[in-house]
Amino acid sequence: MNGLVALDWGTSSLRAFRFDGAGRIVETRARAWGIRQLPEGGFDAALAEITAGWPALPRLACGMVGSRGGWREMPYLDLPADTAQLGRALGRLRAADGRDVHLVPGLRDPRGPDVMRGEETQLLGALALRPALAAASCFILPGTHSKWATVRDGTVTGFRTLMTGELYALLQRHSILGGEAPATDDAEAFARGAAAARDSGAAGALGRLFSARALMLDGALAPAAVPDYLSGLLIGEEFRAALADGLARRDTPLQLIGEAALCARYRRAAALFGIELPPPIEDAAARGLWQLAAQGGLVQPAHEATPAC
Amino acid sequence: MNGLVALDWGTSSLRAFRFDGAGRIVETRARAWGIRQLPEGGFDAALAEITAGWPALPRLACGMVGSRGGWREMPYLDLPADTAQLGRALGRLRAADGRDVHLVPGLRDPRGPDVMRGEETQLLGALALRPALAAASCFILPGTHSKWATVRDGTVTGFRTLMTGELYALLQRHSILGGEAPATDDAEAFARGAAAARDSGAAGALGRLFSARALMLDGALAPAAVPDYLSGLLIGEEFRAALADGLARRDTPLQLIGEAALCARYRRAAALFGIELPPPIEDAAARGLWQLAAQGGLVQPAHEATPAC
Repeated sequence: MNGLVALDWGTSSLRAFRFDGAGRIVETRARAWGIRQLPEGGFDAALAEITAGWPALPRLACGMVGSRGGWREMPYLDLPADTAQLGRALGRLRAADGRDVHLVPGLRDPRGPDVMRGEETQLLGALALRPALAAASCFILPGTHSKWATVRDGTVTGFRTLMTGELYALLQRHSILGGEAPATDDAEAFARGAAAARDSGAAGALGRLFSARALMLDGALAPAAVPDYLSGLLIGEEFRAALADGLARRDTPLQLIGEAALCARYRRAAALFGIELPPPIEDAAARGLWQLAAQGGLVQPAHEATPAC
Repeated sequence: MNGLVALDWGTSSLRAFRFDGAGRIVETRARAWGIRQLPEGGFDAALAEITAGWPALPRLACGMVGSRGGWREMPYLDLPADTAQLGRALGRLRAADGRDVHLVPGLRDPRGPDVMRGEETQLLGALALRPALAAASCFILPGTHSKWATVRDGTVTGFRTLMTGELYALLQRHSILGGEAPATDDAEAFARGAAAARDSGAAGALGRLFSARALMLDGALAPAAVPDYLSGLLIGEEFRAALADGLARRDTPLQLIGEAALCARYRRAAALFGIELPPPIEDAAARGLWQLAAQGGLVQPAHEATPAC
């Protein structure tokens, strides 16, 4: 039987995709078993449970499962890197069930230095889903640690990590800016924060964080609007900085990869910079895992599919 | 008997200065009774204890004691503002002992908007101690919420708050950058962080925070050096941003106000920007409180001192 079990295994969640031999997803399962919240029995137990009842197919995992605190640490592959290079660099470990789990290495940008684990697979998946973007594009992957990555000729040429999601959570939970007021979805406050970041010029938005409190004390921002203002300020700062240093360019397509609700915020912020972003690419990780499995010889590419032996 | 009891009453500490009629500090007392850590009996009890045994002199307080969460909220005075204006704007409350406590209002920069409470008194004290700086200067007051303030012709003309100290503490305690390693005083790591901020150009250092982790994973930064690298990055970013938007100018004197150990970090960061900062002005709050008491008519200016009646 041909096919693949693909695992997107991050810090806070685990998703498993069962592919058939033609590269079609037959079934998807998700658990809250990130590498820091494993069930009793650890990685082996989590893998056994999430693949229960599935046939014994090759298994390939990406994400923090390959980090220092993961199942096995995989070295990073230095940029520039493409699908073929990553496919050749897959590692493996032997699970308790006696069969291998293959692991995707992370990428390292030596110019930062900067590192990613999991996003490289999403990038390659996005390129497979939108081949027109392979020539020259910039991808935005929002999240706890947002990534902005440039692609040229199908190759990842550079990227940067922004701690936007983590900073937002820290400021909300632990700082003087955090209120008792729960975050609403206040589009006007969000836009105001993003515009403040845009208009901060070369000084940047780090020096505007306190404005969330000053505006509130001033009566110019409702306490309940502070979280959305802050979200706008931090996401807007991503665009300001990326445009300021040429990581993003107005003459190069910008493409979001990620979950729709968070990406919607990025699209609204982009509009304030005069940039119209298309809808995000979702579920790019699964497609990237299939691509890498094919490159790494774990599965036959769909167009060469042979009968199961 | 002439003289003054001056109180510098902030979020985390209370200091009391007893002045004689000639404006000399006769005694200083300090307690950990910030407005959020008051003893049993609250503000009245704290005041009674810290001034126990002192004569019944006029009392003047500055700092967060005049904030919304303080003893009594004082309105902010809008910029531009000088010692005379602040002296005319003193407020008062009646303490449980039946006598007044006068309060210094905070300042508000309507262009931010931005606000300060307590630092305005330090600024005026510093100008009294260093009259040569009154013509044109920029003051840096490092802390949980650092302030950069411009002064022209003895008047505070603008300022900005940077959440450097709070951000550093948040990142150390709660973020992925925080390690188990205690902060050392690693001057090389600090300088490396400050240089990274300087070299971040118009993109700014917010996008370099993650470099603290990437360098550590890379083996290029010892885990124990991460806190000082982060401190350098955040303090360096203050200088980069202030120079980028003209808040600080290379042709205008820059002067630190504050505690020596923290100010030493700012002097080291400034050197990486080619700026030689003189030693900080310490205990500026006490001098500012005396100046404001004189302007507000609570005490006779020293050169007009009359015998106690």
